[in-house]
Amino acid sequence: MRRFLWLALFLLAALAWAGAANEREELPGYSGDGARAEIEWEGRFKAIPDPARLRADDQRLSAQPHHVGSPYDQENAEWILSQFREWGWDAHIENYYVLFPTPKERVLEMVEPAKFIARLEEPPVAVDPTSGQQSEQLPTYNAYSIDGDVTAPLVYVNYGVPADYDQLERLGISVRGAIVIARYGRSWRGIKPKVAAEHGAVGCLIYSDPRDDGYFEGDVFPKGAWRPLEGVQRGSVMDMTLYSGDPLTPGVAATRDAQRLPLGEVKVLTRIPTLPISYGDAEPLLAALRGPVAPESWRGALGIPYHIGPGAAKVHLKVTFNWDLKPLYDVIARLPGSTDADQWILRGNHHDAWVNGAEDPSSGQAALLEEARALGELRKQGWTPKRTIIYCAWDGEEPGLLGSTEWAEQHAGELQKHAAVYINSDSNGRGYLEWGGSHTLEKFINGVARDVTDPEKNLSVWERLRLREISEASTTEQRKDLRGRSELKIAALGSGSDYTPFLQHLGIASLNLGYGGEDGGGIYHSIYDDFYWYTHFSDTDFVYGRTLAQTAGTAVMRLADADLLPFDFTALSEAVRGYANELEKLAANEREEIVERNREIEEGLFGATADPRQRLVPPPPEPVPPHLNFAPLEDAVDALSRSARDYEKALKKAARDRGGADPASLGTVNRMLIESEQKLLSAQGLPHRPWYRHELYAPGSYTGYGVKTIPAVREAIEQKQWQQADEQIAVVAKTLNQEAAWIDQAARELEQAIGR
Amino acid sequence: MRRFLWLALFLLAALAWAGAANEREELPGYSGDGARAEIEWEGRFKAIPDPARLRADDQRLSAQPHHVGSPYDQENAEWILSQFREWGWDAHIENYYVLFPTPKERVLEMVEPAKFIARLEEPPVAVDPTSGQQSEQLPTYNAYSIDGDVTAPLVYVNYGVPADYDQLERLGISVRGAIVIARYGRSWRGIKPKVAAEHGAVGCLIYSDPRDDGYFEGDVFPKGAWRPLEGVQRGSVMDMTLYSGDPLTPGVAATRDAQRLPLGEVKVLTRIPTLPISYGDAEPLLAALRGPVAPESWRGALGIPYHIGPGAAKVHLKVTFNWDLKPLYDVIARLPGSTDADQWILRGNHHDAWVNGAEDPSSGQAALLEEARALGELRKQGWTPKRTIIYCAWDGEEPGLLGSTEWAEQHAGELQKHAAVYINSDSNGRGYLEWGGSHTLEKFINGVARDVTDPEKNLSVWERLRLREISEASTTEQRKDLRGRSELKIAALGSGSDYTPFLQHLGIASLNLGYGGEDGGGIYHSIYDDFYWYTHFSDTDFVYGRTLAQTAGTAVMRLADADLLPFDFTALSEAVRGYANELEKLAANEREEIVERNREIEEGLFGATADPRQRLVPPPPEPVPPHLNFAPLEDAVDALSRSARDYEKALKKAARDRGGADPASLGTVNRMLIESEQKLLSAQGLPHRPWYRHELYAPGSYTGYGVKTIPAVREAIEQKQWQQADEQIAVVAKTLNQEAAWIDQAARELEQAIGR
Repeated sequence: MRRFLWLALFLLAALAWAGAANEREELPGYSGDGARAEIEWEGRFKAIPDPARLRADDQRLSAQPHHVGSPYDQENAEWILSQFREWGWDAHIENYYVLFPTPKERVLEMVEPAKFIARLEEPPVAVDPTSGQQSEQLPTYNAYSIDGDVTAPLVYVNYGVPADYDQLERLGISVRGAIVIARYGRSWRGIKPKVAAEHGAVGCLIYSDPRDDGYFEGDVFPKGAWRPLEGVQRGSVMDMTLYSGDPLTPGVAATRDAQRLPLGEVKVLTRIPTLPISYGDAEPLLAALRGPVAPESWRGALGIPYHIGPGAAKVHLKVTFNWDLKPLYDVIARLPGSTDADQWILRGNHHDAWVNGAEDPSSGQAALLEEARALGELRKQGWTPKRTIIYCAWDGEEPGLLGSTEWAEQHAGELQKHAAVYINSDSNGRGYLEWGGSHTLEKFINGVARDVTDPEKNLSVWERLRLREISEASTTEQRKDLRGRSELKIAALGSGSDYTPFLQHLGIASLNLGYGGEDGGGIYHSIYDDFYWYTHFSDTDFVYGRTLAQTAGTAVMRLADADLLPFDFTALSEAVRGYANELEKLAANEREEIVERNREIEEGLFGATADPRQRLVPPPPEPVPPHLNFAPLEDAVDALSRSARDYEKALKKAARDRGGADPASLGTVNRMLIESEQKLLSAQGLPHRPWYRHELYAPGSYTGYGVKTIPAVREAIEQKQWQQADEQIAVVAKTLNQEAAWIDQAARELEQAIGR
Repeated sequence: MRRFLWLALFLLAALAWAGAANEREELPGYSGDGARAEIEWEGRFKAIPDPARLRADDQRLSAQPHHVGSPYDQENAEWILSQFREWGWDAHIENYYVLFPTPKERVLEMVEPAKFIARLEEPPVAVDPTSGQQSEQLPTYNAYSIDGDVTAPLVYVNYGVPADYDQLERLGISVRGAIVIARYGRSWRGIKPKVAAEHGAVGCLIYSDPRDDGYFEGDVFPKGAWRPLEGVQRGSVMDMTLYSGDPLTPGVAATRDAQRLPLGEVKVLTRIPTLPISYGDAEPLLAALRGPVAPESWRGALGIPYHIGPGAAKVHLKVTFNWDLKPLYDVIARLPGSTDADQWILRGNHHDAWVNGAEDPSSGQAALLEEARALGELRKQGWTPKRTIIYCAWDGEEPGLLGSTEWAEQHAGELQKHAAVYINSDSNGRGYLEWGGSHTLEKFINGVARDVTDPEKNLSVWERLRLREISEASTTEQRKDLRGRSELKIAALGSGSDYTPFLQHLGIASLNLGYGGEDGGGIYHSIYDDFYWYTHFSDTDFVYGRTLAQTAGTAVMRLADADLLPFDFTALSEAVRGYANELEKLAANEREEIVERNREIEEGLFGATADPRQRLVPPPPEPVPPHLNFAPLEDAVDALSRSARDYEKALKKAARDRGGADPASLGTVNRMLIESEQKLLSAQGLPHRPWYRHELYAPGSYTGYGVKTIPAVREAIEQKQWQQADEQIAVVAKTLNQEAAWIDQAARELEQAIGR
């Protein structure tokens, strides 16, 4: 009787969870009872995060400057630790010792045609109390610039990305021996000195043009949200596209006794001295430039004609740094799982800031803390997650994802074995869900977003986002596609926050979540990113802080409680098919462009259309690129699609057969799912940067934050390395086939589990 | 024997000219001998225009301000007259008496939130001698603004075109009772007060944003070519889209005794007081505005956030004018034709300016004078044009094409009978051929452009233009089309210069020619458009002045000397087919947009994507437009294509049959060709503006300079007047069928002439 009852219950349960891939799909990976219980717990969870507490936490965390190595950085970590413990978490701090240079000397002056000394300081604002904490503020600088003292002509290089140098070449302007001045934007800032140095520049200034986050966008702080005259964006210029984390310990943890590279061997420092400046400091320099007027798209919002130079401006730039090791304080907190304690769900947000950081990162950290408080609360009410939940408050994200990377490197082995998913957040604001991550989680996170309500509208955050995507679609086809699809696409991740070591180095399926899009602002990495600014111009009543906590917390719970980890490979195979198509188009376009340009050279187009009063260097003819062999990639994409379909079929079959699986029998499948993202890693890593191993997602070598999907092939095509492109197509194809085989096996294991 | 010789010669000649429509087509409309002679004469002609004389003429013409009614305006006319006479032309001056208001009072001040009095003056520049002729300069103003004295809140309306008001409506901002401030550009200036008044505004300021022709584009005058802080664009705001010419005498000549409308009945004056201002005067007003930040595309280059208002700025605007009649001095000069003296080739350029006008119009007027000198010279050498050539130096173009319109209205009957072609120019600069006109002349003017050499490149101006069009093409298809076609497309003409009365009121085939595109500048209609500016920043050595003289003069000669007027209807039918396709797409797009927007309203998209901190008014649902019946238009286009083909066949047949025509027997065909453009006029004129009668080309009622092709249908669709659109499709179709029938008959006449 008991046995029969058990069987009946089991069949019912199996029937329900196997509905995962069915039309209704209440909660993929859950039995009917489990789903009901889960939804009940999630409902209780979502009621807990409290805007008043978010406000208090944000104010507390941002009360003083708390960059790496500062007293308040440590104090925040210890306070976070105490909070976790108070809420019943098993928490501790892990320390690392990392290279973190701070300024010793900073000099920028124009020596010709007129003398001008840059101020290099952000003035306090009377209405804003924390802006006056000058003794604790880091000066304005770019971390990991090398020391340098150079005097040279100035050249304006727009955003300083490779295409800008192509344009300079057409204009017959060289930056060899010059100091370049680039504006912030369009690339991660570290790309600017890197590309400048590759072109022979001897120094690099990076300024915030008012076109990009100053008065062009709206009133400036403190009247409005935008960057004031002397506001400066600090930031790291470490070449994070080679590896993230401590520059001295690539691939290994920066423990006290770790073996460290000598400074001279570190490849991620800039090759030329680099300094960020305000538009107040930039304007006299730019106004002094002569030479051609910059192309229209290069011109910012300063009230001057933008000339490129070189001449007449000559500047002197001197920067020297203390090249010290500083301690990091990562707070790691654990809620142990019940039945599957060796499967981990990770959640992280950094706590260090460039200065006060009420937005970056305290708005995200406050949400993470409210989740932790709420989960602690649920636990007291009797909720026990199947899997172990690990919450992480990272230190040292700003200089280069130091805290997360060192921790990930130290725990690499156990993470690859146990960590199912890493969920990241960073700054948070008002507006729409902004999401990116592993496409194996696309369907899952769509489900979560359908269950979270937007605080401004009587709609789910998912529906609001869907309607915005429709409103922003530029073609009828795009709108039709958006209206027809059941899931919204999530973005692929490049870099710029703490998911990188987990996703791209270790192959742990990751998500990055946040809200934004309704408020802009120009206080990023300045002293004005503080509680006054945030409570006047951003998520002023912290309701989106609550929404972020509800979103990320629900995702954590739903992953931690599921019988079967809700991975899905159909969205993955669709995403990969899309990338493969893009690559083929990219190669075809590049071919076509070269053929066209060669023809134009031949027919005399450049000579005929050159204004004799302007210098214009015609492009040289280029060899026509060979055709690439995309066949292996296409076959691999087909194989991946088939495997994804088979896995989906296995789920559906369970439902159809009225069969099912004992949750306990799913252990093998779950373990396989945990490792499934790792099958997308290549053993040797990406060309020229072996630390990055994910074959689908990487920060672009010349974009930084911006993702390059299937990076080994895409960058080879972009850089016209045709042979490498052909080789890497084969490597990627092999990796995808390996993933397909892994999914096939997981599908078989699932069928067996159902059959049992 | 003589008879036989004559016949032989005639056959040879016929053979050659009938080659017109053949592959080689040396010179359409000419016999072989005639072509050789013509090319010889044209070669001699092109050697004559002299940059040194162009420079001297430009300096002479622009030596003092010479607006309508000024002493130097009359002096220039008399000097031009004396020049023509010196060169052997039969020349005289024709006078008209036109309404030309000049300022009595101009006051612009901000009264809230702070007091600011606009300067409304352009300061002289030390290096620029004529900029100091202040006593002779017209003040900065917009001619044909009504008198007014208003105090009201200010609202920024971007370019002040209808789409900008749609945007304001979405933002919940009304201009009712407000003074609007619009920036120059995107529409003819007269559109701005017209649309503002339609929306209930009580006053209109028009300023030159530095984004559009100031420092954003380059260094400002006198360091560079661009508009300085206090430079102002004067200009007419008469509603020229209703009719051009003297406001008091629409449709008839403004002779001394003409019957004149009372001022109160004139519809082409603005309904609200209007004043142009500099960006120096505009900045304090714009900086005082609050309300929402303007959409990104609305923001100019002033160093401020662009708010829309209303509030806090309130301004007081007062303008009153002397509503006087002023005399016009049109110089009309004639070279009589030999065999076909009753067929006229007209050529014109205005001589009046807003101030000194070294560019506008003296650069074009100087070229016209050099042509006249050269033609006079050729005549002395023995050249006698078949047709009568009439050169016209117009007065009063700036206020509203006054001189050309009054003359065209006075001579309407004889012009429609005798005038084969009108060739216009206006300002001239450095760069590429800029051309527009009747598509019946497209093939002809392509031929001329192939025979003129660009002074900067060892290429014909045609080839240079072709290569630029390829370089600017955005798609592979466009490039392929450009490389494949034997003629470049010419633009359709809207308005803004003296071709309008000839082409759009009288139906005389017209061309508008000029060079430009390499130099910009911000001195348009200011005191800085003078000899100093022109010789520092434009066609400084007047080689493009020579090129314009060569181009327009060659066109005049080639038209005047041809046996058969080189009209072509294939390009016309292709152009019309293109316009018809555009209209069908326009209607379909409008339908699709309304259907889509209605759907978006229904699915709640506007509510979901509205930021609660910003006011945003969702659009109302609209009835879905009915389908229009384009069939009559399609049939008419087909008929026109067939007729064009038949006419071409008649030309080819002559060649194939070794037949030919006695030039004298071509009289009927030539007379039919002269009237062929008139068959494109509609008897009743365009809806709401009967003065405009051309069914293919008109200035847009809401664009001004910008052309609307097939305007009666296009504007009905744009304005969602579906019934009117359907009716006008039928009217246009009828007109096109009438043109097709006329061409058929011309083809038959041509065949008969060949057969004779």
